[in-house]
Amino acid sequence: MEKTNASITAPKGFKAAGISSGLKKSGKKDICLLASEVPAAAAAVFTTNKAAAAPVQLCRENIRNGYISVVVTNSGCANACTGERGMNDARAMVSAAASAAGVPENRVLIASTGVIGTFLEMDKLTAGITAAWSAASVNGGEDAAEAIRTTDTFAKNTAYKTVLGGKEVLMSGMAKGSGMICPNMATMLAYITTDAAITPEVLRIAMSAVADESFNMAVVDGDTSTNDSFFVFANGLAGNPVIDSTSHPDYAEFHKMLLAAATDLAKLIVRDGEGATKFMEILVCNAASRDDARNAAKAIAKSPLVKTAFFGQDGNWGRIVCAVGYSGTAMAPEKTKIFLDEVPIFRDGVDAGSHESAIEEVMKRKDIKITVDLGLGEEQAKVWTCDFSYDYVKINGSYRS
Amino acid sequence: MEKTNASITAPKGFKAAGISSGLKKSGKKDICLLASEVPAAAAAVFTTNKAAAAPVQLCRENIRNGYISVVVTNSGCANACTGERGMNDARAMVSAAASAAGVPENRVLIASTGVIGTFLEMDKLTAGITAAWSAASVNGGEDAAEAIRTTDTFAKNTAYKTVLGGKEVLMSGMAKGSGMICPNMATMLAYITTDAAITPEVLRIAMSAVADESFNMAVVDGDTSTNDSFFVFANGLAGNPVIDSTSHPDYAEFHKMLLAAATDLAKLIVRDGEGATKFMEILVCNAASRDDARNAAKAIAKSPLVKTAFFGQDGNWGRIVCAVGYSGTAMAPEKTKIFLDEVPIFRDGVDAGSHESAIEEVMKRKDIKITVDLGLGEEQAKVWTCDFSYDYVKINGSYRS
Repeated sequence: MEKTNASITAPKGFKAAGISSGLKKSGKKDICLLASEVPAAAAAVFTTNKAAAAPVQLCRENIRNGYISVVVTNSGCANACTGERGMNDARAMVSAAASAAGVPENRVLIASTGVIGTFLEMDKLTAGITAAWSAASVNGGEDAAEAIRTTDTFAKNTAYKTVLGGKEVLMSGMAKGSGMICPNMATMLAYITTDAAITPEVLRIAMSAVADESFNMAVVDGDTSTNDSFFVFANGLAGNPVIDSTSHPDYAEFHKMLLAAATDLAKLIVRDGEGATKFMEILVCNAASRDDARNAAKAIAKSPLVKTAFFGQDGNWGRIVCAVGYSGTAMAPEKTKIFLDEVPIFRDGVDAGSHESAIEEVMKRKDIKITVDLGLGEEQAKVWTCDFSYDYVKINGSYRS
Repeated sequence: MEKTNASITAPKGFKAAGISSGLKKSGKKDICLLASEVPAAAAAVFTTNKAAAAPVQLCRENIRNGYISVVVTNSGCANACTGERGMNDARAMVSAAASAAGVPENRVLIASTGVIGTFLEMDKLTAGITAAWSAASVNGGEDAAEAIRTTDTFAKNTAYKTVLGGKEVLMSGMAKGSGMICPNMATMLAYITTDAAITPEVLRIAMSAVADESFNMAVVDGDTSTNDSFFVFANGLAGNPVIDSTSHPDYAEFHKMLLAAATDLAKLIVRDGEGATKFMEILVCNAASRDDARNAAKAIAKSPLVKTAFFGQDGNWGRIVCAVGYSGTAMAPEKTKIFLDEVPIFRDGVDAGSHESAIEEVMKRKDIKITVDLGLGEEQAKVWTCDFSYDYVKINGSYRS
């Protein structure tokens, strides 16, 4: 497996478009269409938010089908908290895509991102879907990644290639999101395409495990949007022997590639947290259980006190110990060791005695690794997060004013 | 029961002192001593943080005794994350108080608040305890409340009086804390004295229920300190018939008074969140269960997106719906109603259609009530919180620099 430079349409048989339909007043691209020339095995995970947006509710039905041909995404309006009218609009969005592409409605997925509580302008949207279908091509990957952006400061892409059963297989991903950036547009959307052949059942298993280790470990501000969606499409055109069980010889490589692509996208989302000045990787190791490791890592990542300390370049280990202490994780201060990159800051239940200058030097870095060794077991978890800055408050406090 | 104006020493038989021992470089008061002339029935609840400070660990032992004569508190150093040396220092602190007061060590409680990870200066502390014992008097209540402050911008007191079994009973409380204020000093300490007669067992029951409805519902930034402690002392000198069970005729009134005092202190702590510009009371009602109501209210209170929106005076209901949606609480958007004070902002799953000007007017207020009616049951919960401002980031980002 190796990393490569390619867009979402690089795997065989995928085409895409990103066009401007007028949903965004700025005139920027606002409709993204991604299609596979043959029905692709598909799996998806969605927000657990009980106020899930209309498109999410509709996708939950259609994904059961297992094979998908087209996914249409609009930016500018989240179609969330829009009641029955929002559901009808989502159904019309599916219909428009199905008729443009000439496929059954249950082979269509949709996603929306933008302001919560406003209604879609359906005339612009349906005309835009038709236009996007006409425009779709194998060269449309970059436009597609552009069209799903809201306040993202850069388009997010990743790609890998490998050989499965003697056939070259490509996998590409694109995503949008920045959690803390823009309150009503805090949605995370991620799409991965591959020409690998795999059954929908096995794809679901792989994806569920991967989502848990990638997107679910990216913490920006701890808020979970109404629209979060992560899709994977595998159309089989690489011609590799179909991966039909987790014990298939190619499953491990496929899983590895999917995890790598999803992890890349998750990290890019954290890096794009507007207002963020630092990227932190938090590794909690030697925990008594996997849940303990995850809970401790997430508690550190979500703590406003930790996040503001990193913004202030303050190597304040007390806040990290404190967050682990209230996370519910089994911990004993005297067995816990904490490092900022290579510098030990807490050991034997007390300050590790490192020179203040060494800590200051680490805290000036843009990328910092926080390692918490609990000394109680063998489990570990890794979370990515960013700091809380003045700009976070500014952006989120003045969004509508 | 009526509210009154009095300090922690108002109930019969209590005396206190607040003196400066030099632990705080500023020369401000840093040792608080509170004593009852007869052993007082005592109950306490402490932080659930697994990195609990040395004084908390020691108090957990001594409180089992049920009767307490003296509690000594120092500010300026939290004696947290200080290992075995910290435990020895805490034991020496208890010894110093016990010998000054001439009481057994197991009738002494201690608390510390201040910087995590530094050691107590024991010479100053022990001399200070002796001096505080000499200075203690019935007029020392205000000095005591002063001496427990760290970065609190005002001393926090409350008092009530009532009649139990024909006898006038007084209850007074003092507290320190401001959660978000000062990272390493984020401790909440609260003390309530009363001359009511009640057994330690019944006091424990009352206190545990009260803590859950007061301090545990005050959310500043969601971080739980290593040193949080809440103490209640009831010395019985009012001479009322001893409240020896929860079915005693005076229990309900006692419980009501304790809840009122604890709630006052909890709200004062939230109001003193440094950087806070608004005080929000969040009421979640008609929930399917008590836990649902509590979880939803706390999720709203902890959401950085909600907190920054209120700072920015942005009546952004999407963030409130979103927080309820991810809280784990049973909710259906179409049954949910949300109000900001008297103004409906969300109804029937969509925007309630109130005029933007009405919402703007509410958002300018300093005190705002957020009501979320889930429409699914009959349970409710109330949480107090404050907003996230630039100053929150500034104070917490630049604390050590």
